Amino acid sequence: MSPVISHKSGDLVTIDYMELITNIKEMQAFSYSAKRLGKSIAFVPTMGSLHDGHTSLLKKGRELGDMLVMSIFINPVQFGPGEDFTSYPKDIKRDLALADANKVDCIFNPAADEMYPEGFQTFIEIERLSSHLCGLSRPGHFRGVATVVMKLFNIVKPDIVIFGEKDFQQTAIIKRMIIDFNMDIDIVSMPIVREEDGLAMSSRNSYLNKEERMAARCLYTAITRGRDIFNKGVKDAAVILKEVKHIIESEPLSVTEYIKICDTDTLEDLDTIEDRALLALSVKIGKTRLIDNCILQVNQEANKRGF
Amino acid sequence: MSPVISHKSGDLVTIDYMELITNIKEMQAFSYSAKRLGKSIAFVPTMGSLHDGHTSLLKKGRELGDMLVMSIFINPVQFGPGEDFTSYPKDIKRDLALADANKVDCIFNPAADEMYPEGFQTFIEIERLSSHLCGLSRPGHFRGVATVVMKLFNIVKPDIVIFGEKDFQQTAIIKRMIIDFNMDIDIVSMPIVREEDGLAMSSRNSYLNKEERMAARCLYTAITRGRDIFNKGVKDAAVILKEVKHIIESEPLSVTEYIKICDTDTLEDLDTIEDRALLALSVKIGKTRLIDNCILQVNQEANKRGF
Repeated sequence: MSPVISHKSGDLVTIDYMELITNIKEMQAFSYSAKRLGKSIAFVPTMGSLHDGHTSLLKKGRELGDMLVMSIFINPVQFGPGEDFTSYPKDIKRDLALADANKVDCIFNPAADEMYPEGFQTFIEIERLSSHLCGLSRPGHFRGVATVVMKLFNIVKPDIVIFGEKDFQQTAIIKRMIIDFNMDIDIVSMPIVREEDGLAMSSRNSYLNKEERMAARCLYTAITRGRDIFNKGVKDAAVILKEVKHIIESEPLSVTEYIKICDTDTLEDLDTIEDRALLALSVKIGKTRLIDNCILQVNQEANKRGF
Repeated sequence: MSPVISHKSGDLVTIDYMELITNIKEMQAFSYSAKRLGKSIAFVPTMGSLHDGHTSLLKKGRELGDMLVMSIFINPVQFGPGEDFTSYPKDIKRDLALADANKVDCIFNPAADEMYPEGFQTFIEIERLSSHLCGLSRPGHFRGVATVVMKLFNIVKPDIVIFGEKDFQQTAIIKRMIIDFNMDIDIVSMPIVREEDGLAMSSRNSYLNKEERMAARCLYTAITRGRDIFNKGVKDAAVILKEVKHIIESEPLSVTEYIKICDTDTLEDLDTIEDRALLALSVKIGKTRLIDNCILQVNQEANKRGF
């Protein structure tokens, strides 16, 4: 463990265990202590239920920051009615052990009413980027994400934040917020981490029963096929999408939410791919909503990111 | 003049003139230099066209901060279609002289495309507080205000910000944003400054012709009358509002936009005043929209704030 500063006494005392903070003011005091010592803070926001995708973010954070802070907070305002807020997987004990094993200095794990006390009413809207992909099927989702991330940034005061490319749109939106609001934060995005059979790691994979878990492989099969067609020189998005859709729809347990080829900056649909595009999809397997994506890029090496 | 740090050379060199900065990165560098020296920053955001209301904010800022920064920026996103964005009064030379006379260390005066480059799309919504008073007649106004203030806070990095109570709703909204987004900023609000005849100081008073300027006195007459009735023990908002309305409507050049008695925290209409309420009004005199307000409070002393 890296030594950390005791925020409780207010003294700059080296202590040898991972801090677990639930209170906003204490978290801010921890970060101020670190900054007073000239230490940079890397930050990985999570909703807990950690998997290897998260640990790849933690490893990068450990590499980039003097201090590594991870938050665990299942953010109610990013879930819509009928979504899985109440059933979202939780395993704080396992998360803390994983964080400790990954040399996290401080866990921030606030209660919902610490983050959203009575009277809370301030939200962030990122207009165009939120109107595509998951924004269409999850109205208000990215508003909730941007809002909690703004709060977390102001509480943790990171110099560097690390997000995952599986949530490509989320990462794009947070990048946009950082630029538009002139925030002095570097954002690093990390490739998708996959199971052996290609399924993108997700806390929600735990919802899948055995049969659904088998069926879920169709997402990776489909985007791989899309990438292969692109790599053979097909630039017409409709041709690629047709093939990808065919693979998803051949799986009896799947229901397509969206399958899109879009601009990697604006997330607007593309008819023809020039140099670079995002192939992104959201598919329900049974009741479980899964997302995946890959970058289609003329440079072959870039295509391998996340695979 | 207080000595300031040269942000241009990057060195900690004492210079003896007020800085004028138009570039966001330079402004951030200035603020980092100040912070590295352990200096606190007081900040007064303005749209220029300074009057004695602004100078009262500057005096307070000079008192509270080691460094005093003032912004001059006519924020396009807080003006609606048909409002006075293009005609808003400008007198940068006079503003700079006044700032210098009030010992401002640094003026931040960016161009619109420095603040809102192509692709900008991130906005702040403060839900309930924005839905009352001026929010009704100026849809999107407070969204634009909160958005630019968030940007200015991230650029100037103030420890203390000073706002005027004439824009009571604006101040309430910025206070709410600071709380909801866990920003480490102290906000101080300063009483309304008035002309000799009671008219609240406003850059927009310059729009009034001689006849309109005379007519504009009805705002102060009306709220003074409202306060007097309250002080005589009338707690029924409808009774007070009727009197206030009568005074405004007796002025031939006036058109009432709103006259309200509301809760000072939520800005929701009150039928009966318990201990404290806001009496606020917006009235057009000719084409010029003027606002004014006072606090109705059982404690007599508190009623005198802003008078």
